[in-house]
Amino acid sequence: MNGAEALVRTLVGAGVEVCFSNPGTSEMHFVAALDRVEGMRPILTLFEGVASGAADGYARMAEKPASTLLHLGPGLANGLANFHNARKARTPVVNLVGDHATPHQRYDAPLSADVEAFARPVSAWVRSASEPGTVAELGAEAVAAARKPPGGVATLVVPADVAWSEGARPAPAHEPAKRDTVAPAAIAEAAQALRSGERCALLMSGPALRASGLTLARRIADASGALLFCDTFNTRLERGAGRVAVQPLPYFAVAAVAALEGVRHLILVGTQAPVAFFAYPGKPIELWPADCAVRELAGRADDAEAALEVLAEELDAPADVPTQDRVKPEPPTGPLHPGAIGASLGALLPEGAIVSDEAITAAAALFPGTVGAAPHDWLQLTGGAIGQGLPVATGAAVACPDRKVVCLEGDGSAMYTIQSLWTQAREGLDVTTVILANRSYAILQIELQRLGLEQPGRRAADMLSIGRPDLDFVALARGMGVAASRATTADEFHAQLGAALTEPGPHLIEALY
Amino acid sequence: MNGAEALVRTLVGAGVEVCFSNPGTSEMHFVAALDRVEGMRPILTLFEGVASGAADGYARMAEKPASTLLHLGPGLANGLANFHNARKARTPVVNLVGDHATPHQRYDAPLSADVEAFARPVSAWVRSASEPGTVAELGAEAVAAARKPPGGVATLVVPADVAWSEGARPAPAHEPAKRDTVAPAAIAEAAQALRSGERCALLMSGPALRASGLTLARRIADASGALLFCDTFNTRLERGAGRVAVQPLPYFAVAAVAALEGVRHLILVGTQAPVAFFAYPGKPIELWPADCAVRELAGRADDAEAALEVLAEELDAPADVPTQDRVKPEPPTGPLHPGAIGASLGALLPEGAIVSDEAITAAAALFPGTVGAAPHDWLQLTGGAIGQGLPVATGAAVACPDRKVVCLEGDGSAMYTIQSLWTQAREGLDVTTVILANRSYAILQIELQRLGLEQPGRRAADMLSIGRPDLDFVALARGMGVAASRATTADEFHAQLGAALTEPGPHLIEALY
Repeated sequence: MNGAEALVRTLVGAGVEVCFSNPGTSEMHFVAALDRVEGMRPILTLFEGVASGAADGYARMAEKPASTLLHLGPGLANGLANFHNARKARTPVVNLVGDHATPHQRYDAPLSADVEAFARPVSAWVRSASEPGTVAELGAEAVAAARKPPGGVATLVVPADVAWSEGARPAPAHEPAKRDTVAPAAIAEAAQALRSGERCALLMSGPALRASGLTLARRIADASGALLFCDTFNTRLERGAGRVAVQPLPYFAVAAVAALEGVRHLILVGTQAPVAFFAYPGKPIELWPADCAVRELAGRADDAEAALEVLAEELDAPADVPTQDRVKPEPPTGPLHPGAIGASLGALLPEGAIVSDEAITAAAALFPGTVGAAPHDWLQLTGGAIGQGLPVATGAAVACPDRKVVCLEGDGSAMYTIQSLWTQAREGLDVTTVILANRSYAILQIELQRLGLEQPGRRAADMLSIGRPDLDFVALARGMGVAASRATTADEFHAQLGAALTEPGPHLIEALY
Repeated sequence: MNGAEALVRTLVGAGVEVCFSNPGTSEMHFVAALDRVEGMRPILTLFEGVASGAADGYARMAEKPASTLLHLGPGLANGLANFHNARKARTPVVNLVGDHATPHQRYDAPLSADVEAFARPVSAWVRSASEPGTVAELGAEAVAAARKPPGGVATLVVPADVAWSEGARPAPAHEPAKRDTVAPAAIAEAAQALRSGERCALLMSGPALRASGLTLARRIADASGALLFCDTFNTRLERGAGRVAVQPLPYFAVAAVAALEGVRHLILVGTQAPVAFFAYPGKPIELWPADCAVRELAGRADDAEAALEVLAEELDAPADVPTQDRVKPEPPTGPLHPGAIGASLGALLPEGAIVSDEAITAAAALFPGTVGAAPHDWLQLTGGAIGQGLPVATGAAVACPDRKVVCLEGDGSAMYTIQSLWTQAREGLDVTTVILANRSYAILQIELQRLGLEQPGRRAADMLSIGRPDLDFVALARGMGVAASRATTADEFHAQLGAALTEPGPHLIEALY
């Protein structure tokens, strides 16, 4: 058996069932092996940033890694921005990168590059296979490394001759590593703070943002009077009617500082102490009060839910907590704006929907508008590298074929990985993409003012506007085989969203406001 | 004066006139400075791979660097594949990357990443500015480093606070470094080989592929009976009627080995010993005969043209050499295929045209079809990272507004940086893009067979086909504001190409065959 086949068999044996691919010549033996081995679904993307982002979205929902198959250093380079997002999301991904055959590597051929150097900044684990006899064992290690809590990108470089040479055999899957148990002292410290009578806040992120973790956190907050927040940007948040609502810490630093005003004990659950997204001249970076003690209840690799459970018992927390009511907004009417879009979403999101949120400025209206929607998952831009929303939606739809995926996407961000639409069409994925078309990098217009810069001049203004020419997302979607429509009023949008959510398969709505 | 303004003034003073940009918050002070300083034209792209590739295309034609302005680690990451191509092209680029403000860097904010680590694999020079007092001097160093022969990507990381803080002043431009002079011994050795009576070949790349260098090489070949080749992929080749034609070494290794059969002395001019693009099981990597001596006449940083001049004198080479006749093919008719497209190009390319060639498999017909076209420049995919053709065409059109640019682009490759079309529309660039739409990664179908793999199974075949759904490039172009048409016969193509080359501004023709 050659190295490629042993590797595919090993990955399938370890539960890796999907491969988001942009293969080239050096990966052809891996591609050929996919035909000989049952159990690994290859999904072609037209650009590697789609593959890396889709693997992120897949793992967020499937709770296990997909693989990616990329072509040497430059193919990997194209996937790096979304691997950066996956790194910040702590998403497990098994990233396979082909390389030149070993004897070819000493020549400076056109595609020669330092593949490992490209991989290191985004990877929790990087190895290169050097012979067919060990590539399968490295594949098993890669899966284990990707899944090792809190989760990360494991990059395995596979030279072409390692893939094509005989003498390999599949390797058994590693026993999955468990999350660490939080030390009793950390729980006791948190309990002490929560009982102190001083103002406390819980700040949460990671897997504790599922319904069960949020219920525990709410019980603790109700028992102690603590405030309850989650990070501004999260990998996956379960929310909607019947669940415990949690308030994200505001994006803008001034608002975040206000939210934490008076807090004397900030208790971290699967996250780190909160800082401003960017620094601004003369403005604080740390968002917590100067006299506030920051304590970690559970680190990112810890079993936060178990710790919350012990803490809730310790505090004798009430068993029942209020959950979010179903709030079904009236169908909006009149001019189209993010608030109207939020109302439509709040009314129409079906139960079990998965929302991929890269709405940037518009998210400020869409998130509150959906607080009482039918229960759903909310996936966010974790690493600030725009171009994540469409690929994450694509991967989430692969992971959950029975659930509706809605992608809320800024027009500027959409253009980074617009090729995602083609993969959605090819695979018949049930994704409704809403393009929030304000025809500008609106966030930058806000940031310019926050930086204390005066009204931008013509050249600067040009760098913040993506009009001239206007992008026509209906044409772009149709060019990639996705049905599309444009809404310019709230009524049109509501009708189009209702129709798209009723029909299976990919749709795009350009919401022009 | 703040750091950003001092940096802009320094770059302008050093002759950097264009900035291909995808700015974000951390680059806003640089953007604001562009309004206060005359002489730097900012050009917005919708994806960083367009910016890096456009800077490459610009410098190939302008013979001096443009700058790029990218947003932190992930923005840089999106530009890396085309920086890889620029590295292999030895193109000078001044790559400016914003970073978090210095006091912000110790926090693991969402966009925090190791910017220098991303930059290193593609850069000839990487530095981070640490204070406003030195950022301008680093800018001047970056320009010098980019221009240092043979040319490369110089990356300067600029933290936001370095850009916004006062206390900076512009720095003077460095004296440009000259190319090294080839040692007389190397010229004498080459002369000795060329006089030996044994079969010799010159293999050329780099700046010697301009008309003057090629004339010298042809004179030497005629005096000595040597064969004359250029690399398979070149940064810029001057060719067409009235110029000396040069044969590129064939892409496929078997054909390249045959071309060099019997050669006992291979003389390198601005390039390295030729190797196969990829390795294949049991096939040779080195393309020259085992008993052939490989000698370097001029290295990549050397003044190859001066060396050729001395060598031509040494060999008492004839002053006159035959040049390529104008060959104007008849307008093709009937079914559309790459040969017909080549004939149309051969007939219609206007004098001074710049061709950006990322036609992959179709190039085998397009290159010979244009050998006798009106004189023109041919720019190629130097690093094998597809997605270069459209951006290089974009940058070349910025550099040469009075010349027609024609981009010959495979459909699979086009989708990597299709966002280029929008920048062409916004800037009104005179680029005619021909999409060679065979609806597959045709090169991979060939490579699969060359690797000795049997007929691909269904899953493998799916990874090589980009049909299902078919891409509609006319819709995609119109979605980005570029006039477009589709040709399905040779007659249609000829008429559409003729019209596009007559009208100014961007056009796209989807050549479906």
